[in-house]
Amino acid sequence: MISWTNMDKLASYQALTKVSPICLATAMSGEGGAERVRKYTVPMGAGLAFNYGARPVDDSILAALSALAEEAQLTEKFAELYNGAVINTGEKRLVLHHLTRGQLGNDVIADGTNKRAFYTQQQSKIADFANRVHAGEITNAAGEPFTTVVQVGIGGSDLGPRAMYLALENWAQVNGCRKMKAEFVSNVDPDDAAAVLARVDMAHSLFIVVSKSGTTLETLTNESFVRDALKNAGLDASRHMLAVTSETSPMAKSPDYLAAFFMDDYIGGRYSSTSSVGGAVLSLAFGPEVFDMFLAGAAEADQLATSPDLLENPAMLDAMIGLYERNVLGYPTTAVLPYSQALSRFPAHLQQLDMESNGKSVNRFGQPVDYVTGPVIFGEPGTNGQHSFYQLLHQGTDIVPLQFVGFKNSQMATDIDIQGSTSQQKLNANVAAQIIAFACGKQDDDLNKNFAGGRPSSIIIGDKLTPAALGALLAHFENKVMFQGFAWNLNSFDQEGVQLGKVLAKRVLAHDTDGALKVYSDLLNI
Amino acid sequence: MISWTNMDKLASYQALTKVSPICLATAMSGEGGAERVRKYTVPMGAGLAFNYGARPVDDSILAALSALAEEAQLTEKFAELYNGAVINTGEKRLVLHHLTRGQLGNDVIADGTNKRAFYTQQQSKIADFANRVHAGEITNAAGEPFTTVVQVGIGGSDLGPRAMYLALENWAQVNGCRKMKAEFVSNVDPDDAAAVLARVDMAHSLFIVVSKSGTTLETLTNESFVRDALKNAGLDASRHMLAVTSETSPMAKSPDYLAAFFMDDYIGGRYSSTSSVGGAVLSLAFGPEVFDMFLAGAAEADQLATSPDLLENPAMLDAMIGLYERNVLGYPTTAVLPYSQALSRFPAHLQQLDMESNGKSVNRFGQPVDYVTGPVIFGEPGTNGQHSFYQLLHQGTDIVPLQFVGFKNSQMATDIDIQGSTSQQKLNANVAAQIIAFACGKQDDDLNKNFAGGRPSSIIIGDKLTPAALGALLAHFENKVMFQGFAWNLNSFDQEGVQLGKVLAKRVLAHDTDGALKVYSDLLNI
Repeated sequence: MISWTNMDKLASYQALTKVSPICLATAMSGEGGAERVRKYTVPMGAGLAFNYGARPVDDSILAALSALAEEAQLTEKFAELYNGAVINTGEKRLVLHHLTRGQLGNDVIADGTNKRAFYTQQQSKIADFANRVHAGEITNAAGEPFTTVVQVGIGGSDLGPRAMYLALENWAQVNGCRKMKAEFVSNVDPDDAAAVLARVDMAHSLFIVVSKSGTTLETLTNESFVRDALKNAGLDASRHMLAVTSETSPMAKSPDYLAAFFMDDYIGGRYSSTSSVGGAVLSLAFGPEVFDMFLAGAAEADQLATSPDLLENPAMLDAMIGLYERNVLGYPTTAVLPYSQALSRFPAHLQQLDMESNGKSVNRFGQPVDYVTGPVIFGEPGTNGQHSFYQLLHQGTDIVPLQFVGFKNSQMATDIDIQGSTSQQKLNANVAAQIIAFACGKQDDDLNKNFAGGRPSSIIIGDKLTPAALGALLAHFENKVMFQGFAWNLNSFDQEGVQLGKVLAKRVLAHDTDGALKVYSDLLNI
Repeated sequence: MISWTNMDKLASYQALTKVSPICLATAMSGEGGAERVRKYTVPMGAGLAFNYGARPVDDSILAALSALAEEAQLTEKFAELYNGAVINTGEKRLVLHHLTRGQLGNDVIADGTNKRAFYTQQQSKIADFANRVHAGEITNAAGEPFTTVVQVGIGGSDLGPRAMYLALENWAQVNGCRKMKAEFVSNVDPDDAAAVLARVDMAHSLFIVVSKSGTTLETLTNESFVRDALKNAGLDASRHMLAVTSETSPMAKSPDYLAAFFMDDYIGGRYSSTSSVGGAVLSLAFGPEVFDMFLAGAAEADQLATSPDLLENPAMLDAMIGLYERNVLGYPTTAVLPYSQALSRFPAHLQQLDMESNGKSVNRFGQPVDYVTGPVIFGEPGTNGQHSFYQLLHQGTDIVPLQFVGFKNSQMATDIDIQGSTSQQKLNANVAAQIIAFACGKQDDDLNKNFAGGRPSSIIIGDKLTPAALGALLAHFENKVMFQGFAWNLNSFDQEGVQLGKVLAKRVLAHDTDGALKVYSDLLNI
């Protein structure tokens, strides 16, 4: 039987807090350090490997983490989830984003439908539509092909798909499968939509309006913004606009859209990149085959996440080590540092994924928890970050665990050899050097030049950032966050913390305010 | 006399720790809250105001912070700095970025030169060059005008100028002063340069190579990358390349550049947006007059930072309240949340500015400090962040102080009225609502829907994001970071923490490694 218990009530967690921590700087030195790096690695799917040699664990701590994962029934809970239990207790919903890329367990029947069949059917509809756009069968009113796709959405309808698009844009370019350029409008700041609309060729653009509920204030506002601009350009909006929404939303059956593609309430926004939310824009931009490769990579990572053996389950392992860093070692933030410019917005996506899922103070039954939960997540691509905030990471008063990502090869293979090494080699030499600098440090009598070390990191290493590798990378972090939520006994799939701001904003717009809120409203000219 | 003393040795700091903290949720409620918001505001220059109504202070705490600022001699130390003392003790350098935009004190003579005259002379050279490019007097070999400027730099040569460019791009567009498009290449990842070069029109592009020392690995690598691409396009590189560097660098007198503009060792990279580092690219993109307005705004903020009265000195006030939140209340991170899409990369710039300046564990004499210093800084524009990581900010187990920025008017003035309000009003209604939601919270018997409140924020409010407002905003944060560094008794102007990684990366490239570093190098195919 599944038991949902607060972490601090588990004997294995109490045991974990009593295991001796390691001295990372010592452990990573000499031949012992080399041995750790060779040993502490596990395949992640799609050719990626998760190397945790420089995380602050040893076999004893890993055994304790394994016991915790077992007592907390992490993989059993995952099985509950993918077999269709109501895991999102707050909103009384199933959590089915894994079904958008594969079938890990039993058929899931909900609302009278086989949900895997529903998601694949939507993907087929999208693929067919995208193929017809690319073939010039679906055109604008003048019979001309569409060249640009603009995603209009916010939060999960924006960050994930945008990060994925940027990650594959150059790969698609050099592999001859960049079909359309994609742009994104998200912010209700009118300068966001105005700037994007000023630079796109409206007559040859398709706009995808993405809102599960069909009621997201920012998105509906920007949809109106786009409709106005199309009208002002003398264009028929209904030939340029698509909807991605749930079948029950007001957008679903509207004649205002050229086509509508569906997700449902069982796909959380921040978990929706592999659903129609990511599927429509990525299939239009790169072709449905590329989106399929992306899904296949995610499915590989999902499969690995079902293993009850902690050392064979990279997402659960990453989750448990992160939990140890957060709850036992007391580190409040985590940095995500991809050594790949293509992943420039991947940290922003993970920031939402992690902080919105596990930034909570009550358990899944609405009772307070007596331990810290989700950390603050931030990051920028390396080597850029090295010339920016790494100073604090190396010598600041707080320790920040680091998650590096690196690839043996660049995406575009346009490179230059200077002083005996390519740019890609220089890039990778830097990430290798950083791991050791953080872990081992370097003593100096001038304390201003002293590096204490003991700063943990892991690195995910791949051959090249392909669609499949990206899918595995995305799913790895989704599953990591899920496992941490299970261990902390949270509901990682609701977001009640965003509601109060929405309610108060409506009151401001209705001029129904008093006290400090009224003063701020006046100061801001509302 | 100036005394450089660790903060915990100051009587006023010990007194500060004994002042009763406030209950922010109570203080911000009802008419008392309204009164706080009306009262706790101070002009920041260029029409901006810093409102700290929702920060966790009252008159008693402010008096204690004022006493600390006085005992720590913050404005006297600032005067030392702008009058030319060797403030950067580690590198034995003056710190003169304020002189790039004004003269706050005495003439500063260094290296036999009046430094204010030197900086303004460089600005004049840049202005003259930019005007000649815009007038079509400086052209490519075919006599055609340049349309694009590409900044090649990393860290401070990239983040600040890039954030400033993005902040003003749309403003310049609607105000008829967008002269050239700007692009940026920073990362040594070859996909960064390859992607930018693939989309720019090489024949009509000017490339600015920015490196103070003339030895930055990433920048020199990318310079070669650009030179190769120009050569392959049959273009004469020396007609397309500019240098921004110090007069003593190998780049300074090279015939390989069409022109060279100078800064010097007294301008730190992260403080260089108002020097030639920002001046060249911004003057080419928008015209020298726009850059002058930007400098004038920064100069206004600098002037305000000279006031010894804490309540009249917004940068020092922001610094002291931030220090109270960090050291007394114990909050480890701070989020920067501009409600302006144009400021999309401003948080990334502040992340470098703050974390590289004050992410240190030893004081300016190289002795350990017994208190925490610079926090982790992160942020994204609102309202996007609301649909992302705000969940953790509202209901997570840690409290994160917030720095909001908002403007009464949009930059482009293309707006739409839906349901009785414009997008700009919706944007601002959201930031007003968030401040109250964070501060006051809302009780609910369902703890999953409960908001504890007590989460502090300030807001900087301006009329519109103009060049002058941007300059004041930038200088405010530069000066805030400086004052915090003075209070923590740090040297905020060196960055020894970035050195070890550089040394180890060179060893990796020379294949001079063993132990764990060799294993990582092998795994990454170097």
